[in-house]
Amino acid sequence: MQATGEARITREAFDRLCAEELPFTVSFGFRLDEIGWGRALCRAPFRADSIRPGGTIAGPILMGLADFALYAAVLSRIGPVPLAVTTSLTTNFLRRPRPADILAEARLLKLGRRLAYGEVTLLSEGEREPVAHVTGTYSIPPSAAASGAAVS
Amino acid sequence: MQATGEARITREAFDRLCAEELPFTVSFGFRLDEIGWGRALCRAPFRADSIRPGGTIAGPILMGLADFALYAAVLSRIGPVPLAVTTSLTTNFLRRPRPADILAEARLLKLGRRLAYGEVTLLSEGEREPVAHVTGTYSIPPSAAASGAAVS
Amino acid sequence: MQATGEARITREAFDRLCAEELPFTVSFGFRLDEIGWGRALCRAPFRADSIRPGGTIAGPILMGLADFALYAAVLSRIGPVPLAVTTSLTTNFLRRPRPADILAEARLLKLGRRLAYGEVTLLSEGEREPVAHVTGTYSIPPSAAASGAAVS
Amino acid sequence: MQATGEARITREAFDRLCAEELPFTVSFGFRLDEIGWGRALCRAPFRADSIRPGGTIAGPILMGLADFALYAAVLSRIGPVPLAVTTSLTTNFLRRPRPADILAEARLLKLGRRLAYGEVTLLSEGEREPVAHVTGTYSIPPSAAASGAAVS
Repeated sequence: MQATGEARITREAFDRLCAEELPFTVSFGFRLDEIGWGRALCRAPFRADSIRPGGTIAGPILMGLADFALYAAVLSRIGPVPLAVTTSLTTNFLRRPRPADILAEARLLKLGRRLAYGEVTLLSEGEREPVAHVTGTYSIPPSAAASGAAVS
Repeated sequence: MQATGEARITREAFDRLCAEELPFTVSFGFRLDEIGWGRALCRAPFRADSIRPGGTIAGPILMGLADFALYAAVLSRIGPVPLAVTTSLTTNFLRRPRPADILAEARLLKLGRRLAYGEVTLLSEGEREPVAHVTGTYSIPPSAAASGAAVS
Repeated sequence: MQATGEARITREAFDRLCAEELPFTVSFGFRLDEIGWGRALCRAPFRADSIRPGGTIAGPILMGLADFALYAAVLSRIGPVPLAVTTSLTTNFLRRPRPADILAEARLLKLGRRLAYGEVTLLSEGEREPVAHVTGTYSIPPSAAASGAAVS
Repeated sequence: MQATGEARITREAFDRLCAEELPFTVSFGFRLDEIGWGRALCRAPFRADSIRPGGTIAGPILMGLADFALYAAVLSRIGPVPLAVTTSLTTNFLRRPRPADILAEARLLKLGRRLAYGEVTLLSEGEREPVAHVTGTYSIPPSAAASGAAVS
């Protein structure tokens, strides 16, 4: 899948959708920093209450951020459709996060008529080695897929 | 793996360990209801702030609860060792949770010298069909595995 | 999902479908031993050419058998529909197989309108501890799901 | 992980190891085309007997090739050690393969003291969209990891 073209959803529209549909993403402080065609860059700000002793970030925060970023990447292709739902999420924890913001780089690998699939790399800000690698699948509402001209 | 014998950790010791090591499990209200040899039954109480609109439970809560329950099942075999860490977690979301407590039934399928692997079924309390099915792998500290007489 | 009732496909019809659609399952010698509502028991006969040195069974044989068994479990609910396709398969290798037949016990955990999901336990015949645990997802053709009265 | 430096195993040494340890890879015709530091490019030649009706490649061939390629990527970092074993493999089937050779591009995302983790993209030769995306974990023998100066 070529990550070309503009996203079909703006950051502002995505923020509104999340505030309405996914309030926990707001309470965790998740932010969408950039969005493009089939990709998204998101951030979980470092907060003392989300960490494990030793300064590392809790697993549910990492998994929730990955899901949030991949959801943004899906909506970048199908537009602001609230009915795409996560059907599976596989997380591999690779390194202990530093006490810093976590960045999530998501990209779609497939957008089909019924399913979207992509991957997310999670990094501690300022580091090069990933703290986790996540893959996920989303079920796409029929109408949304039908409207996607470039669905492959 | 036969789920026979008594757990090597008590509920009280597990609660203490979580309060020290995994404070988010306390803030989410996760509870260990039962623990046996290679298995655990845990609960996430229904709370308005953990739900998505429509009354469903947020994905990170489900994934965090599954991790918590499988961690208890691992410690039921190796005892109160704080260094077992999750290396992967795969969640399949099957049905929309009801506005009710979520129960997590975890059981180990393997405890090796270096890795433990198990599965978790998540249900809305009072329902029979699972809302999610989770599998996970944990890295076991060498000394803990060595001390486990029944490690298979 | 309650595993009650009779399978919607007979062993003979499943064998015919596999001979036509999945010839590699024939060349690997996979067999369906039992089929019920939402479950199947399959077998890969031990053959010298499928083993690794040391007498263990090759990974692709194990993964192919698990896929075969879960496919049978899907068809036990939707009938002899050739268009159900595997969308994901996650295999955890737990123990080295013995030089013996491999048995695969598959059961569906969900049959939805669009996706089926289930798990498979693989064992060396005569052993109690699993050699592998597999989960898989299948995409269901719309007409097949629509005809399934008991789809949940 | 930066893919820099030379592989610690040559193509010839890898071929010898597979002929001895993994004879099914030879019978399937798998080939290692390129190997570098933490990455490998492999190929399954198109053969009529590995296909499903309609000209597509059987799932076990795709999964076996991905495992083969990721194994090469692991050995590119730890050298010709025969004891690295696959502990999990997750395959997402994305598109129907064409009747052509399948290429597998593997890269390591982590090499730890005990576990290696990486991903593989599978493509039909001449196509740009992946037919499958695979992630896998390998258990590393202690001595091999200890000898790896650049293990991260």
